[in-house]
Amino acid sequence: MIAYLGPEGTFTHEAVRRWVGARAGGGDAAQQPLATVREVHDAVASGAADRGVVAIESSVEGYVVPSLDALVGSPDVVAVDEVVLDISFDAFVRPGHADPSGLREATAHPHGLAQCTRFVAERGLLPVPASSNAAACRDLADHQVAFGPRLCGELYGLETLATGVEDFAGARTRFVVLCRRDDATAAWAPARAAGHGSASEAWRTMVAVTPVVTGPGVLARVTAEFAERGVNMSSLVERPLKVRERQYVFVVTLDGAPWEPQVRDLFAALLGAGDSLKVLGAFPVAPGGPGLDGVLPDHVPTGSVLGADDDATVARGLLW
Amino acid sequence: MIAYLGPEGTFTHEAVRRWVGARAGGGDAAQQPLATVREVHDAVASGAADRGVVAIESSVEGYVVPSLDALVGSPDVVAVDEVVLDISFDAFVRPGHADPSGLREATAHPHGLAQCTRFVAERGLLPVPASSNAAACRDLADHQVAFGPRLCGELYGLETLATGVEDFAGARTRFVVLCRRDDATAAWAPARAAGHGSASEAWRTMVAVTPVVTGPGVLARVTAEFAERGVNMSSLVERPLKVRERQYVFVVTLDGAPWEPQVRDLFAALLGAGDSLKVLGAFPVAPGGPGLDGVLPDHVPTGSVLGADDDATVARGLLW
Repeated sequence: MIAYLGPEGTFTHEAVRRWVGARAGGGDAAQQPLATVREVHDAVASGAADRGVVAIESSVEGYVVPSLDALVGSPDVVAVDEVVLDISFDAFVRPGHADPSGLREATAHPHGLAQCTRFVAERGLLPVPASSNAAACRDLADHQVAFGPRLCGELYGLETLATGVEDFAGARTRFVVLCRRDDATAAWAPARAAGHGSASEAWRTMVAVTPVVTGPGVLARVTAEFAERGVNMSSLVERPLKVRERQYVFVVTLDGAPWEPQVRDLFAALLGAGDSLKVLGAFPVAPGGPGLDGVLPDHVPTGSVLGADDDATVARGLLW
Repeated sequence: MIAYLGPEGTFTHEAVRRWVGARAGGGDAAQQPLATVREVHDAVASGAADRGVVAIESSVEGYVVPSLDALVGSPDVVAVDEVVLDISFDAFVRPGHADPSGLREATAHPHGLAQCTRFVAERGLLPVPASSNAAACRDLADHQVAFGPRLCGELYGLETLATGVEDFAGARTRFVVLCRRDDATAAWAPARAAGHGSASEAWRTMVAVTPVVTGPGVLARVTAEFAERGVNMSSLVERPLKVRERQYVFVVTLDGAPWEPQVRDLFAALLGAGDSLKVLGAFPVAPGGPGLDGVLPDHVPTGSVLGADDDATVARGLLW
């Protein structure tokens, strides 16, 4: 059974179907929507579910911190695969009511409404918030348009009025597939047997590094260990520990698999320095490249200054 | 005029009032709710507003990435102060309708409903989503309970049925106060004149560092420059640049002010190495300590291993 953050018809549900569809014979697995990330973790940890699926990172909002914290906090659950989805909204109407003149309201989760403002404005619709996009589709009235993933049309028997109605195309969300820590090696076996992993960019690993001592030099020491071994960090997130003020856990996503020599050597060096470590997940890089690289919204640090700039420009940029 | 991310009655509005109240003579400034972070930035950049207020970090959700990206992308707007608020919800009813037997529904933004599930369940209420907590309070019906910041009661003339009805107490959000880059020095003058800044922990600075070259060693080099000068990073966020694949901008919050010698020396060294820099903000540390330190939710990396652990434990933790 595959547990996921529901309700049915969410983008997470779409990620589950995508992941199942890509695996031979995987189509038979039951799929169970749950209400919270915690419940998905608990279902996986207890063995009630073989796999769990939750969103971990969005190109618009960055890391999904509750999902990240759950992975950091869980002793028994680990990520063994990832799914990257384009986040695109379709506009649905009830069957037989696609006549635009009778449509007066647009309904979706407030986030969905916020992402489809142009469509709403152009058609002069009144926005009506729903508890989820899926709920908006399920409970759709004759005078309403609902926004949701493509899946919702099929799930709730709706007609598609328009596709790709989001204001800005190109948003993506990354989902992780969770399993019990003790089952991880078996979960990876098919990809390893298929030869996935010949290049060091073929896998990515998420690891939580909790340094023993804190202070100005701690991140410099940890990053130096990566640099010395040529292990590339593709992302680094820092989360403070509540229990110990000014102490942090660093969640690093690195290029490589935990069993590869340069990664093993890195882990051994960090352990040798007294750091506490936990691998949170490892997964083959999806076709098309790692994670959300290259699809994130543009946020060039406009107004940045360089050493070669004149003094006044530098002073304005640095406010020193 | 102070522009803020509205509508009226949001936690951001509460942050505006808190900030204004703490400043002598600040109470006369007009306050203008705007619909998006972008509009708040534009109002400040154009001079239509003297100050702008947006949320930048939450103890539950981490950085508010759209606010962070706006600050990174804006050449003309900088953060000059911060406000840290406890995020606590009160339950409101319409005046004269506090008789619990007639209350059948609970209304709020879906996030607000998600944070007050226990209250909803204990009273057997039906959750009804609203586009914002403030809208829920404004449009409250006789048979409904709305959840929102304390401010909403006063703003919409509601009775308070109960206070602090969130499931988990202790959540906080950090807001930044924005002004035009060219006005920053004047904005800091009162705090500097008052002697705020005698200790290196008295100010914090947010700086965007965009390294010229990328690769495994880049973060190690940048963090080493901080460590050599004993400049403490209190947070580090990495955001990929869309325009240049695999290139990143690091947003670092450091202890110190841009004009302090060790920080100037650090910035000069990074410029000397060819990095592009921009100060995104600087602000006096609020009484009670910096930012959200010590109030974040607990997410100890349970299941982490140490070098002294036995081989089987290490292998389970690292999956190598």
